Amino acid sequence: MSNTNLLNETHNPALVSWLVTANQTDTDFPIQNLPFAVFKRANSEEAFRGGVAIGDQVIDLAALANANIFDGLAQAGIKACTAPQLNDYMAMGKATWTALRLALSNALKAGSSLQDKVATCLIAQADVEYALPCNIGDYTDFYTSIHHATSVGLKFRPDNPLLPNYKWVPIGYHGRSSSIDVSGRDFKRPSGQTKAPTATEPSFGPCKRLDYELEVGIFIGKGNDLGDAISIDNAEDHVFGLCLFNDWSARDIQGWEYQPLGPFLSKNFASTVSPWIVTTEALAPYRSAWTRVESDPQPMPYLESENNRAIGSFDIQLQALLETQNMREKSEPAVEMSQSNFKDSYWTVAQMVAHHTVNGCNLRAGDMFGSGTQSGPNPEEAGSMLELSNAGADPITLPNGEKRTFLEDGDNVIMKGWCKKEGAVRIGFGAVSATILPAS
Amino acid sequence: MSNTNLLNETHNPALVSWLVTANQTDTDFPIQNLPFAVFKRANSEEAFRGGVAIGDQVIDLAALANANIFDGLAQAGIKACTAPQLNDYMAMGKATWTALRLALSNALKAGSSLQDKVATCLIAQADVEYALPCNIGDYTDFYTSIHHATSVGLKFRPDNPLLPNYKWVPIGYHGRSSSIDVSGRDFKRPSGQTKAPTATEPSFGPCKRLDYELEVGIFIGKGNDLGDAISIDNAEDHVFGLCLFNDWSARDIQGWEYQPLGPFLSKNFASTVSPWIVTTEALAPYRSAWTRVESDPQPMPYLESENNRAIGSFDIQLQALLETQNMREKSEPAVEMSQSNFKDSYWTVAQMVAHHTVNGCNLRAGDMFGSGTQSGPNPEEAGSMLELSNAGADPITLPNGEKRTFLEDGDNVIMKGWCKKEGAVRIGFGAVSATILPAS
Repeated sequence: MSNTNLLNETHNPALVSWLVTANQTDTDFPIQNLPFAVFKRANSEEAFRGGVAIGDQVIDLAALANANIFDGLAQAGIKACTAPQLNDYMAMGKATWTALRLALSNALKAGSSLQDKVATCLIAQADVEYALPCNIGDYTDFYTSIHHATSVGLKFRPDNPLLPNYKWVPIGYHGRSSSIDVSGRDFKRPSGQTKAPTATEPSFGPCKRLDYELEVGIFIGKGNDLGDAISIDNAEDHVFGLCLFNDWSARDIQGWEYQPLGPFLSKNFASTVSPWIVTTEALAPYRSAWTRVESDPQPMPYLESENNRAIGSFDIQLQALLETQNMREKSEPAVEMSQSNFKDSYWTVAQMVAHHTVNGCNLRAGDMFGSGTQSGPNPEEAGSMLELSNAGADPITLPNGEKRTFLEDGDNVIMKGWCKKEGAVRIGFGAVSATILPAS
Repeated sequence: MSNTNLLNETHNPALVSWLVTANQTDTDFPIQNLPFAVFKRANSEEAFRGGVAIGDQVIDLAALANANIFDGLAQAGIKACTAPQLNDYMAMGKATWTALRLALSNALKAGSSLQDKVATCLIAQADVEYALPCNIGDYTDFYTSIHHATSVGLKFRPDNPLLPNYKWVPIGYHGRSSSIDVSGRDFKRPSGQTKAPTATEPSFGPCKRLDYELEVGIFIGKGNDLGDAISIDNAEDHVFGLCLFNDWSARDIQGWEYQPLGPFLSKNFASTVSPWIVTTEALAPYRSAWTRVESDPQPMPYLESENNRAIGSFDIQLQALLETQNMREKSEPAVEMSQSNFKDSYWTVAQMVAHHTVNGCNLRAGDMFGSGTQSGPNPEEAGSMLELSNAGADPITLPNGEKRTFLEDGDNVIMKGWCKKEGAVRIGFGAVSATILPAS
């Protein structure tokens, strides 16, 4: 199978919208994208409800549902999007998602007879605030970048960086749902126990090695019953879409606490998702082959399929930027720390789903996976400061002369993502950002 | 502070109920207990709602709320218990919990003028089925038994059983909420990757080392805001109550997957809670001192308080029993595997709460902690088969001649718990049980 089987009229690069900002070449949100969020007018008493991005506007799905211009699955779908959380819509499955996407595409395209009705449902993105797109029942963080796993492993276990299970098991662990918030919600630097390598006893205080992790978030749509594994070839029927995800990490707390049961307080003080979920369907043009080095072990049958090899990966360019307090005060632009690409991940989204459920574990609509930090094959493609600063040994000098090993109070980390390909229209993920407040 | 400050008229050992089964010496549910569950008549179309156990009956809290015989906080509390999940009630906090407990105690005690009205709200426990008592937003498993940590450590890391952080950090990790179910819901043996120590490559198949873990479940009541730590002296204001918890574990899957990020598929296929939550208030007579070996490190200040030393522990006797398919077919009684006591835990409930939030992590009403496997200081007090069978090396011979190293299909594991003390009335936790079905 090639990705052409996944393409339909909504992906047609020739499509343009009657909304001019959707047709600008640098927009993240052309008519071919149509990502979902939950929003309301900023500082209003309105209820949060679903929205779809188009150009510089949000389509208010509650208003559009009321306009009653769709029918069948599309109308059923948009009704579910009037809720303050998209879980019910995400649970409806692929036929509904596809029907609503097509209906929205038709209503937004140049010449649509619905233009007048839809135009009354638009609100400028500049005027809204976002909430989490859904109730995240369970959050699992994977560890799918072999480049990240190897370079972090070198720092925690110099003699044994990549463990023997890595090329067999899509390593993952459970994370905390309660402390996941949406882009823009700042948070305090965590305090906790740390132990310097030379110290005889641990000490307590604000984290000194606060880091970001450049990740992709993966939202589950339709769930599965406890005891029923999802096969790799059905896996993507259960994936609603992808977002940007910053899995903030306290490296010094992590180093002291993580044995033998894994990271805990080093992770659960905050995690931040982008407001927009780009649907798996929108990403169809940007699928790419999943390949392994010839000498690597063949995956076990439950992690292997022809389809996964052909188009299991997503070609998504990821970028981390840093805006320090100084830069903000002087209105200087944020500085790029690195770029990497999700297609370099050692394990695919379908493999994560198949692995997570092979023991019968049940997924629910709205559950989220983190991809794990996405670092590319080259050192400058590292998705964390731990890697970029060589665990703090080599400070990074920023263009304005400031130095960083890890993050300082007032630092704002911004992540972006986009897909670009010959013959397709560029689509983007918007951004995720949050600023570090001083410890209390 | 001693526990006498926590006692009130509802704990009076002289109290008896007009319901005779509540006054039998072997009941788990005398008038001094009053634990909460969510229930409906078995196989009925009724809605699930809150219930309180008394003797062999359940008080239907929806019916009792309708009777409108309470007032103030007690009536507000019981109204929240009419919901199919107790999260809202749990979020109301200590003043409400105490008011409703007192109102129920007064209504149930011998001579109460409310006897006739309350009697119409009773349903026999034999006639009901249970659901999870609340939506468990996040589940965290701790590792508080030093005896378990040491003996398991010996099996996974013979040279290094108890890691240097153990006596400083109340080790915990995030678990899976979606696969937690209530007592009686059987589940399939999980399949997954395992690797025998002598094998060069892992293999795939049904788990061969399926185990139970004898734990206490701890339900959070009032939550905290992200960024605000809960101090150890306020910790128990946030704890609604305790239950029995079986944290099923696939030891062979665990051994291969758990490095470097902790257990994942070895745990998330199923976890089972008892239907009844015994409230922290009901447990007041059974508090005990929290002590450490003199040579152990003093806990950091955020984990230390006079109150915690005086009455931080809970004296709860725990028991694991096994009923094999053979025993069931021959109507033979289940066999005791071990007993241990929660007061032997190295870390207290208050320390778990203080640690979990010291970095600002937010807890929400209905979140659950597992205590970790409770093994006592003596080998026969081990809370898992991994320990009892010496990691499978020493098969256990059951009284009927059957042998076990780990659990087999058809095995039903039953856990019980109770509190007994001179001068107090015995209270119990009921039971948690589930049976292992063959792998699919």
